[in-house]
Parts: sequence; structure tokens; C-alpha cells
Amino acid sequence: MSVRYKITVAYDGAAFAGFQRQPNQRTVESVLEKAVTIMSKSDVPVRIYGSGRTDAGVHALGQVFHFDFMHEIPEMSMLRALNSLLPLDVQVKKAELVSDDFHSRYSTHGKRYMYRVSQGEFTDPFKRFYTGHYKYKIDIAKIEEALPDLVGEHDFSSFVAAGSQVTNHVRTIYEATVREDKENHEIIFEFYGNGFLYNMVRILVATLLEIGNGRRPVHDILRLYEVKDRQQARETAPASGLYLKKVYYPDELG
Amino acid sequence: MSVRYKITVAYDGAAFAGFQRQPNQRTVESVLEKAVTIMSKSDVPVRIYGSGRTDAGVHALGQVFHFDFMHEIPEMSMLRALNSLLPLDVQVKKAELVSDDFHSRYSTHGKRYMYRVSQGEFTDPFKRFYTGHYKYKIDIAKIEEALPDLVGEHDFSSFVAAGSQVTNHVRTIYEATVREDKENHEIIFEFYGNGFLYNMVRILVATLLEIGNGRRPVHDILRLYEVKDRQQARETAPASGLYLKKVYYPDELG
Repeated sequence: MSVRYKITVAYDGAAFAGFQRQPNQRTVESVLEKAVTIMSKSDVPVRIYGSGRTDAGVHALGQVFHFDFMHEIPEMSMLRALNSLLPLDVQVKKAELVSDDFHSRYSTHGKRYMYRVSQGEFTDPFKRFYTGHYKYKIDIAKIEEALPDLVGEHDFSSFVAAGSQVTNHVRTIYEATVREDKENHEIIFEFYGNGFLYNMVRILVATLLEIGNGRRPVHDILRLYEVKDRQQARETAPASGLYLKKVYYPDELG
Repeated sequence: MSVRYKITVAYDGAAFAGFQRQPNQRTVESVLEKAVTIMSKSDVPVRIYGSGRTDAGVHALGQVFHFDFMHEIPEMSMLRALNSLLPLDVQVKKAELVSDDFHSRYSTHGKRYMYRVSQGEFTDPFKRFYTGHYKYKIDIAKIEEALPDLVGEHDFSSFVAAGSQVTNHVRTIYEATVREDKENHEIIFEFYGNGFLYNMVRILVATLLEIGNGRRPVHDILRLYEVKDRQQARETAPASGLYLKKVYYPDELG
């Protein structure tokens, strides 16, 4: 009888070619599978299942994956053992024994993303991998006025990257916030919803920045819902500013 | 007639083999000289003069260098032009025209270093290049009690790395502080003095952490001044936590 572990993990995406396994690339998934496989002392690689992909350069504060393990060991021992086997840019935050019907991807009922934008004429050398940089002026009041347009169920066809193979573009956003961190010259967005399309958060952020800068009308997002045309949302904010903050499962609140 | 520029620069030391030029290595000095030389449109490399070296992995918030340039251009134009030529991990913060008797190294009358220590059982993936990690408990009150022992003129022979060729180990520390950033689980040191020996800040930090952890008596630094023996200070805190914060010149206060 095998047991199932749910693992919450943080990673710095800067040195990874994204989450998903790819031949000859350093990915988060391959690094995690390697650690879990070493622990299993098995000749067969242990497969892990992530809640979803993140792109190259995208970070995670609370990505979740699960795997099945041949013998039960205490949660804290699992956490410590994995951390001792993982490289320094990946860190297990939590290890939990879960029932066999838990699935990191199919049991999800929501995700929360954070996006950090750094301001100022030049990119801060310490932030180049950890923020998106936007050097133009931002009127945060305009963004605050636009954000309620995101909340609720909408067709996000204008906000999905060309590469996506998903055909249903309707998603629900429960919460969309922005705050200014004046001391660090940053603007920080958070989006909590039932699911996000490919590049959706990065396209939304780029659109919101254009609204804040006055290049778009404040309520342009309402128009973009109607036109369902990716060409009109134009920009995609860089991967470096994006953080998968939390993956939600039943019995967890936003 | 050439003019002299004083440049204040910040850099993320993580991807550099230190400040000083070395064959076949990516160093801050070589990157800066390349940018200045391109600007000069000359066939001859323009030499730059830093206030001092920093080791591989050590960061700077306010390193200073100077160079002579064949024609005078406005300070802001110099700043913008250099930033457009520099890689994203180096950023010019200030460009100033100075008199010919200014020398970034010989005119210095002090330096300020910061050292960031991250706490907790595991290293935060986002801090691995930007802090030194210390997982043991720290009683900050003990460190606060020890810090006044550093202030004043002392023989730091116990706190100089073996590789140093400097024979006079007497330096004056004007200010030594520590503060806890509880939200980020960090302890942040600052040292302001007239000069620092090779690895001196990193050896001091390691010694202070041992005092904070109770592995050394609170006033052990006074004993270490007496014994003048590097073996007794033992540890050197990692380069990743060290930041050259400011270089002082006459008419500047600490």
C-alpha cells in the first residue's frame, strides 16, 4: 500500500526553464522528481504531479504537487529529507499526508498569483529577475478604478496567449488588488480566481499598467471582453515579476 | 584636456567573479571598462579606478570609481549612456564631474558595509545569493552588547584573511549596528569605518553570530584583539550577505 504526499514548494524561477519536464532542460519538475526518486531508493523514477505549469522565469511561493510513496514516513521527516536533496533555489515549505483521492491538479478550486512591478527610470540590479520593470508614470487610482471590472465570471479570450490549446476561456476572478510599496518603488498586484489561462495574469498586468499610464481608457477591459481579440491587449508583462502565491483546495478559504 | 568623472554604481555580485579584472572572468571592473571604452569611441581601452575590490558574490549599493574622459558631457547624459551600455546587473546611480585631484581610492576617508543574515531552518530560495544564512538561534541583545567593543581604533589582526598582504592591521570603526527585520526573518549589520581589511567584515559577522548564539562569551572580541590570531576567529560569513553600501569622501558625513 502506497501513501500519498501533498507538498507545498517555493522556487526561484530565474534559473529554471519553467516547471514542466523537458528534454535537456533544467526544470522544477525534473529537479523535484529526482529528489523524490532518490528518497524512494527505487530504480524506477517516482512521478510527481504538479497543480499546473509555470513558465520559464516565473516564481512560486506556494506551488503544490503530489506523489505516491511506498512507505509512510513522518511529514517533517519528508520535508527535511527533500530539502536536503533539493538545490537551493527550490524549498519545500510543507509536507502533508493526504488521502488517495487528493490530486494536486484536479482537486484545485483556485489559485492566487502575485505580480511585482518595479518603477523608476532604470532597472534595479537586484530586481531584474524578481520584478517586471515599468519605467513610465502610473496613476494607481486609475488601476484601482479598473480592477473591479476583472472580478466575476468573464470570457478572457482577449487575455490568452496564442499558444494556448484551451478552448473555454471563461474564468472567474474572486479578487484583484493592487498596492504601492513606495519604499521599494514597487506596485504589487494580486489575482485570486478559479483558474487562469496561459499568460493571462501577465497580459492583464500589462493592460492594467497601460490603463495606469493613461494609454488606455480606465474601463477598456470591459471592451476587451467584448472584442475577444488577443491582438488588442497587445503586451505581456515579463515572467520575472510573476509569482504563483497559493494553490487552493477544498476546505481552504481565499 | 581630459575631464574626470566620479561614478557611483550598484551591482548584484552573484554573477561576477568579484570587482577586479582577471583573465577570462566576468568581473565588474571589466564590464565597466568596456562600457566606458565604447562611450569614448577610442581604440585604446579607458582605464577605470575603483575605490577598492569586492570579492566574488559580494554586492554593492554604492561602489565608486573614477576615470578620465577626453570630452566633457553632462552628468545625466553620462549616467544614461553608461546605463544603456551596462548589463542589467550593474547600474550607475550617479555621475559627477570632479576635479583632477579626486581619486576614488586615495581620496576615500571611509566605507560603510551592510551584512544581511537570513534566519530559519532552511535557506529561502529567493535569498540564497543575497544573504548569509544562519540557522541557529540568535539572542540579539548579546550582539548589541558586543558591538561597542568594535567601535574605536583597534588592531584587527585576528579578523584578517590569510591572503591579505597588508601589514598594518589597525583600523578605526566609527559605527557598528545591528537590527532585526522580523517580518523578513533577517538580522542586518552595518559597519562604518575608515577602512576594512580583507574579509574583515565577514569574519566579524561570523564572530558576532557566534556571540549571539552563545558559542562565545559576549566580550570575546576584546580577547581576540589581544591574541592577534586569525585561527581563533575561525569562521567567515559567506560573500552573498555582504554589501558595500557607501564610500565616503571629504565633505561627506557618515
